[in-house]
Amino acid sequence: MGMTMTEKILARHAGLAAVSPGQLIKCRLDLVLGNDITSPPAIKEFDKIGRPVFDREKIVLVPDHFAPNKDIKSAEMTKIVREFARKHEIVNYFEVGRMGIEHVLLPEAGLVAPGEVIIGADSHTCTYGAVGAFATGVGSTDMGAAMATGDTWFKVPAAIKVELTGSLPKWVGGKDVILTLIGMIGVDGARYQSLEFTGGGLASLTMADRLTIANMAIEAGAKNGIFPVDDVTRDYLKDRVTKPYEEVQADTDAVYTQVVTIDLNQLTPVVALPHLPENVRPVQEVPETVIDQVIIGSCTNGRIEDLAQAAQVLAGQSIHPAVRAIIIPGSQAVYLEAMQRGFVETFIKAGAVVSTPTCGPCLGGYMGILAAGERAVATTNRNFRGRMGHVDSEVYLSGPYVAAASAVLGRIAAPEEVLA
Amino acid sequence: MGMTMTEKILARHAGLAAVSPGQLIKCRLDLVLGNDITSPPAIKEFDKIGRPVFDREKIVLVPDHFAPNKDIKSAEMTKIVREFARKHEIVNYFEVGRMGIEHVLLPEAGLVAPGEVIIGADSHTCTYGAVGAFATGVGSTDMGAAMATGDTWFKVPAAIKVELTGSLPKWVGGKDVILTLIGMIGVDGARYQSLEFTGGGLASLTMADRLTIANMAIEAGAKNGIFPVDDVTRDYLKDRVTKPYEEVQADTDAVYTQVVTIDLNQLTPVVALPHLPENVRPVQEVPETVIDQVIIGSCTNGRIEDLAQAAQVLAGQSIHPAVRAIIIPGSQAVYLEAMQRGFVETFIKAGAVVSTPTCGPCLGGYMGILAAGERAVATTNRNFRGRMGHVDSEVYLSGPYVAAASAVLGRIAAPEEVLA
Repeated sequence: MGMTMTEKILARHAGLAAVSPGQLIKCRLDLVLGNDITSPPAIKEFDKIGRPVFDREKIVLVPDHFAPNKDIKSAEMTKIVREFARKHEIVNYFEVGRMGIEHVLLPEAGLVAPGEVIIGADSHTCTYGAVGAFATGVGSTDMGAAMATGDTWFKVPAAIKVELTGSLPKWVGGKDVILTLIGMIGVDGARYQSLEFTGGGLASLTMADRLTIANMAIEAGAKNGIFPVDDVTRDYLKDRVTKPYEEVQADTDAVYTQVVTIDLNQLTPVVALPHLPENVRPVQEVPETVIDQVIIGSCTNGRIEDLAQAAQVLAGQSIHPAVRAIIIPGSQAVYLEAMQRGFVETFIKAGAVVSTPTCGPCLGGYMGILAAGERAVATTNRNFRGRMGHVDSEVYLSGPYVAAASAVLGRIAAPEEVLA
Repeated sequence: MGMTMTEKILARHAGLAAVSPGQLIKCRLDLVLGNDITSPPAIKEFDKIGRPVFDREKIVLVPDHFAPNKDIKSAEMTKIVREFARKHEIVNYFEVGRMGIEHVLLPEAGLVAPGEVIIGADSHTCTYGAVGAFATGVGSTDMGAAMATGDTWFKVPAAIKVELTGSLPKWVGGKDVILTLIGMIGVDGARYQSLEFTGGGLASLTMADRLTIANMAIEAGAKNGIFPVDDVTRDYLKDRVTKPYEEVQADTDAVYTQVVTIDLNQLTPVVALPHLPENVRPVQEVPETVIDQVIIGSCTNGRIEDLAQAAQVLAGQSIHPAVRAIIIPGSQAVYLEAMQRGFVETFIKAGAVVSTPTCGPCLGGYMGILAAGERAVATTNRNFRGRMGHVDSEVYLSGPYVAAASAVLGRIAAPEEVLA
């Protein structure tokens, strides 16, 4: 019986010829990731074990959530991470000013590669499935143990095949694909399963689209999301990944619990209404919704392609007087390129805030928290009640085109309403 | 008996031919300012009075301290300010993304002019003395009452004459002048007095230098700091101020309690050691001091000239690996110009954070809060215990040259150590 991509990768890392769904296996890890919120408790667990780190080149620490430090508590937490990194000579500790949002930074820096098994103490670690790796979020305790042992236990997930056909129409991006999928199967539609993307439609998806899609696999409850490696992937990895890696393909007779087909040609820009990512509607069908804030950024949509889309809409426009538009490049490299390509100038001239890279408002951290009754359109990944601030605030999820158009018009809007 | 600049301005606004120190007078106000921290309580006081605003063009509201909103509480506070501004159709309400740090923004936007009387519910309102206005900080209650009445009571301050001679040497700026003065007279050396700057040395001071100097008058306990209007001022105001204004000169027989003379030629870059701005030493005499963070920005040193100095030092350099360098343009206009002149690219390539305009870390708000035991060099205005974070952290005040050099070397350093 054939194996899915995920099964194959896990089997190889467990030293087994084959694995099947539900099997408990112990896998060698290629990368262990933590951030400023999750690493301090992980370090505490690690210290209890009393061993050295398994590999100082395979641990990545990124203070991105509440850094630059939003308060004394976050300052103390980043200090714990920094001191741990110094003590153990962690190669990939990224200091404030030389970093980015973890899931934007790691692919960009060539730290994740096809065929790898990656865990991160952050839900959106599944992002790296975009390059054909098995990547999943874990708790801080697992991260702490893994930093010492270099391995961890998994229950092999079953898989859902997501067959993409056609190609992306104008104004439609990866965010619309994943939101549409979550709208179809629900926020627990893929619970503890792998979402394996495949089909002829992949060719029209940029790496940015794929990273966005894999990033939100968790929002359908998936253990991971994963894409096959093709020329788009190889082109992206070419000048980034210097370590050896192995491309893994699903067997043609792999078994899936379900096949979901999405015709990309039929997609339109969508919005996920409060308070779940599954409340998805075409932007044209969203009732008139006046907004207070727009966030463009995050590990979901903070890449240069996302900022390019926002800049395309915002060029020569003004942010609506009643709206705060906050644009957050996902990394210093993205920031630099956005500046060099004139996007930052466009944003500032339009009256938007351009922030240093940070997760910030996405998880209600800082840099744009909502008061009671306020509404935001955000390119982030979760619109749970109170996620971006007050329990009586609302978050509407969208891609950058819709977010930028909404910022100009002061209400949820389609990009065509700004750029006829 | 002649009058000082301050006495003359106050007399005119009180409708009196002359005033003298200690006299209680009621003055008409040209501008009333508040920010996101001080305006909500002022609005509460204003609402109790139950009158309309005295002049919707003479009230300025700037959400700069904890905005973009750092948390739910600050979101609720900026919301109060925003709703007040809408209700009373305040012309100069500056929304996030279209603003700056209040004391950088107001002069830049041409809202302050020579001869005016300006109050602001913020200690550093004294900044506007740089353009020859009487400007001083007040409490929120006074601000609230003033928004209704358009006037307020003052006790006329006595004045200290600060006679500047010579001209600024290389690497020395306005910050070094004011820190040197505070080092000479102490943090209460000018308590409830006016600091009147004068002398041939003025000609070598840019408007940025003067704004920095006037900004920190309060750190010597002064009621206000004030500069005569000269060609440097007029050149600065030319394309900014459209309202009519009147230049005011001190009488030649004005009476001062004290004359302090500073020979600018003799100045060197200085640092104010923790925990008072009066603990001033030449940077060369500061003992080896390893640092964790550098802040370049604030209402004191967040202007384009300050960023130009930082860029001069940081060009082609790298921030020390153990240092977080956080650079905060004082306004969106400063940010835009810094980008157009290549400074932002220099900062990011050096590994510095470039933040959207905010007061942020200066007052321990966010965007770079210190943990216990951490040390920062900052171009801000106060190094009181715990000001930037934990009670056991330390802040060293300096100008942008010293701050930038320290960021590169990881310890308090003179600019010559980086740029030989």
